[in-house]
Amino acid sequence: MSDHSAVTVAFQGELGAFSFSAARHFFNAEIIDAQPFERFKQVFEALSTGRVTHAVIPIENTLYGSIHENYDHLIQHDVRISGETTIRIAHQLIAAPGVPFVNVRRVFSHPVALDQCRRFFSEFPHLAPVSFYDTAGSVKMLTEKQLTDAAAIASEASAEIYGGVILKRNIEDNQDNFTRFFLLTKQIQKGDKFCRGDFWKTSIVFSIANLPGALFKAMACFALRDLSLTKIESRPIREKPWEYLFYVDVIGCIEDEKVEKALLHLEELTSFLKVLGSYRPN
Amino acid sequence: MSDHSAVTVAFQGELGAFSFSAARHFFNAEIIDAQPFERFKQVFEALSTGRVTHAVIPIENTLYGSIHENYDHLIQHDVRISGETTIRIAHQLIAAPGVPFVNVRRVFSHPVALDQCRRFFSEFPHLAPVSFYDTAGSVKMLTEKQLTDAAAIASEASAEIYGGVILKRNIEDNQDNFTRFFLLTKQIQKGDKFCRGDFWKTSIVFSIANLPGALFKAMACFALRDLSLTKIESRPIREKPWEYLFYVDVIGCIEDEKVEKALLHLEELTSFLKVLGSYRPN
Repeated sequence: MSDHSAVTVAFQGELGAFSFSAARHFFNAEIIDAQPFERFKQVFEALSTGRVTHAVIPIENTLYGSIHENYDHLIQHDVRISGETTIRIAHQLIAAPGVPFVNVRRVFSHPVALDQCRRFFSEFPHLAPVSFYDTAGSVKMLTEKQLTDAAAIASEASAEIYGGVILKRNIEDNQDNFTRFFLLTKQIQKGDKFCRGDFWKTSIVFSIANLPGALFKAMACFALRDLSLTKIESRPIREKPWEYLFYVDVIGCIEDEKVEKALLHLEELTSFLKVLGSYRPN
Repeated sequence: MSDHSAVTVAFQGELGAFSFSAARHFFNAEIIDAQPFERFKQVFEALSTGRVTHAVIPIENTLYGSIHENYDHLIQHDVRISGETTIRIAHQLIAAPGVPFVNVRRVFSHPVALDQCRRFFSEFPHLAPVSFYDTAGSVKMLTEKQLTDAAAIASEASAEIYGGVILKRNIEDNQDNFTRFFLLTKQIQKGDKFCRGDFWKTSIVFSIANLPGALFKAMACFALRDLSLTKIESRPIREKPWEYLFYVDVIGCIEDEKVEKALLHLEELTSFLKVLGSYRPN
């Protein structure tokens, strides 16, 4: 990722959203051409159609679990995972410049963010939480309107982008709120060689019928080759009772012989198998 | 559950929330003493301390995955799962009585619910979505204030409870949005026998270190006894790198000999194991 000039990154949310922070983290750069979209579906379409070179999506959260919708998009679209990072969801109290904390009476944010800062609101009971459609959007609104009695709860990046000032830092109740993000690119061309160095992970999705022991056999493909899994998750397929989708992350690159053979073995046992990508944690 | 007179059920949210609908579903009754709490933590504390006889909690959603917070509470509290049900998350457009659809200009709801009804808003572009802290709470607000130009997006139950009128039914974009709920009671006394009839499920949580093949051995406890799993999910333990919590649902009751032996076997392999309960889907 040495040449950033041609990098365009689609993400869901407003500029300053946590997906935006993840995008900046992947490219280790302040300036990337980040393109916000309202829906995850649009993010995947932008990448599939070549409108952007990359996309950044959240895939799971330590409090709320896996985002099945994005697994569905990963299955349906011709894209691959090329990177992974984890961002701590830290909330900042942000106001327009010149607004001191003592003047703040209303605090705007998405209700999920407001809900994650209950301790803060019980400490300052004169502050009224006000629901807004988006965290970063609430910073944008109050800096544009120059509200003098209001603040917003949002990311540090959104203060920077919309010219807000951080009045209180890290006001979230739970410090263990982390979101894992994937960096996506277009599907790799067959024959491309890309695995170099250590610490690769490969993410796959497959489905098997819920015969007793079917999952056990699938796990054997990895265990018999001493391959370690860092994630396994089942998800019922609604239209097919007793059939399940599995999300599996295995340590190793798709080009490692052991991983390659494990996947060939797994293919014998599954009704559907897709390799979502091999990548190194960032 | 023949005697409903002494049943008190804690749940998170406002009266009319989907957890409330799940509570009514479990007791197959219109009238139960349902006690709303702001936080899941408070729901578990109400049950642990005997303030209520039951609690109803969401445990996973078809779009958003497992609710790890509630697994954490299940591990920490001396309660057990005694029932399971799945509710479709269907959104209704609700107004105060006498307000026709043509008069509606503003639509209040939690932003997540507003976001799940985008098709509806694009069909009626003169309607302005307005963020509110809660779905059912928005029905309560507009019926109390008798707003004549507003509607809310919430459950059918909340229309009934707050005297609202449903103007449009099932306006959600995605019909595949289901939430699985658990019914909880206090921990069973040792020696109690309760498994009767067929179709039991048992939910367990355990942790193992991520040695290659450790999960495989754990799965063997079930596979070697021809026991079927309906859920398996790993979750990294943040404080202990390379150690994982696993959520497993197995078909069978804790008192079935095969299940009992599988769990004894599993105990040999795990550093932590808790049976969360045996129950029949409702």
